[in-house]
Amino acid sequence: MNFPSKLIEDAVNEFTKLPGIGKKTALRLVLHLLKEETKTVEMFGETVIRMRQDIQFCQKCHNVSDHPVCSICLDLSRDASILCVVENMRDVIAIENTHQYKGLYHVLGGVISPIDGIGPDNLHVDSLVDRVKKDEVKEIIMALNPTMEGDTTIFYISKRLRDQSVRITSIARGIAFGGELEYVDELTLARSIATRLPYENYLMNH
Amino acid sequence: MNFPSKLIEDAVNEFTKLPGIGKKTALRLVLHLLKEETKTVEMFGETVIRMRQDIQFCQKCHNVSDHPVCSICLDLSRDASILCVVENMRDVIAIENTHQYKGLYHVLGGVISPIDGIGPDNLHVDSLVDRVKKDEVKEIIMALNPTMEGDTTIFYISKRLRDQSVRITSIARGIAFGGELEYVDELTLARSIATRLPYENYLMNH
Repeated sequence: MNFPSKLIEDAVNEFTKLPGIGKKTALRLVLHLLKEETKTVEMFGETVIRMRQDIQFCQKCHNVSDHPVCSICLDLSRDASILCVVENMRDVIAIENTHQYKGLYHVLGGVISPIDGIGPDNLHVDSLVDRVKKDEVKEIIMALNPTMEGDTTIFYISKRLRDQSVRITSIARGIAFGGELEYVDELTLARSIATRLPYENYLMNH
Repeated sequence: MNFPSKLIEDAVNEFTKLPGIGKKTALRLVLHLLKEETKTVEMFGETVIRMRQDIQFCQKCHNVSDHPVCSICLDLSRDASILCVVENMRDVIAIENTHQYKGLYHVLGGVISPIDGIGPDNLHVDSLVDRVKKDEVKEIIMALNPTMEGDTTIFYISKRLRDQSVRITSIARGIAFGGELEYVDELTLARSIATRLPYENYLMNH
């Protein structure tokens, strides 16, 4: 694609570096910004730069935060005896949006994945063990994605916490509400039969 | 959606102002930028701001340009006696990418659309008439989208140029290569029959 302007070509190239944005979409975004007021575009660019420059990570849970300790960890109305272990900030947002969970979080920053060169040392596992030892944590809920890497990470963490008197649970895996049995993969279906619940418990969840 | 950080929320909101980008996509883009180096993100923001601040419009054809007159208008190897009238810069890029057109352009900046409050005075029609009068323009190719607004604009411009000895043509409309007759809309099919070509001309275009 030939551009009539180097300025536009540079801006398009910057946008194509973002995930899921190709040349055509990038050009559409750039042309949109061209039509906007200069002030609006300055606001856009500066907000994005400020976000990257000023962002911090919570010293306790490693979630992104505007302050040294994040608003969730500072919230005294939350139950500090339960930690929900997640991979990244996006999972925290997803769980927070359910409005069902009132404990704290611990963001690992990833999962163990030898193929990507990510070992336990690259994750915030040591600080999780420290929190369990120092704070009075009674339960750890593993809310990792149901993948090989997620399961490996859960296994590793549970071994590291073997000597601690903390209860380790995992979020339930099974057929999603609205899902149809015949389209569910075999592994999920097999697991959901193996981990079947007494009907009374099932009713309780409704 | 609740965000753990105001900085992230602001950045997500800025991205959602772009066309076709919703909250989830915006969050994905922001999280991608969070993982990048601060310098990379500064480069992104500054390039976009610079693009908007420094962009100019060619004094002759009104296409976007880095200089007072754009590189196409300055190119002496191009045929200045033919003007291709287009709606915006994107159409210029599309036609340039065919590598078939060697004339100059005239960017209207839109089409006449009473419903959007766009009249002839909001478009670069006067300067087009000036160019036809002053420069030795022999042919004007109307390359506007085949819509009601496009056709209205062509009609208006052709009336304005009635007294000039300039040939006015329109790009051919018909069945696209690879298109199947049965899926083509009636208007296009009817027009392509009405504007049928002698077979010799058809062969010439292959």
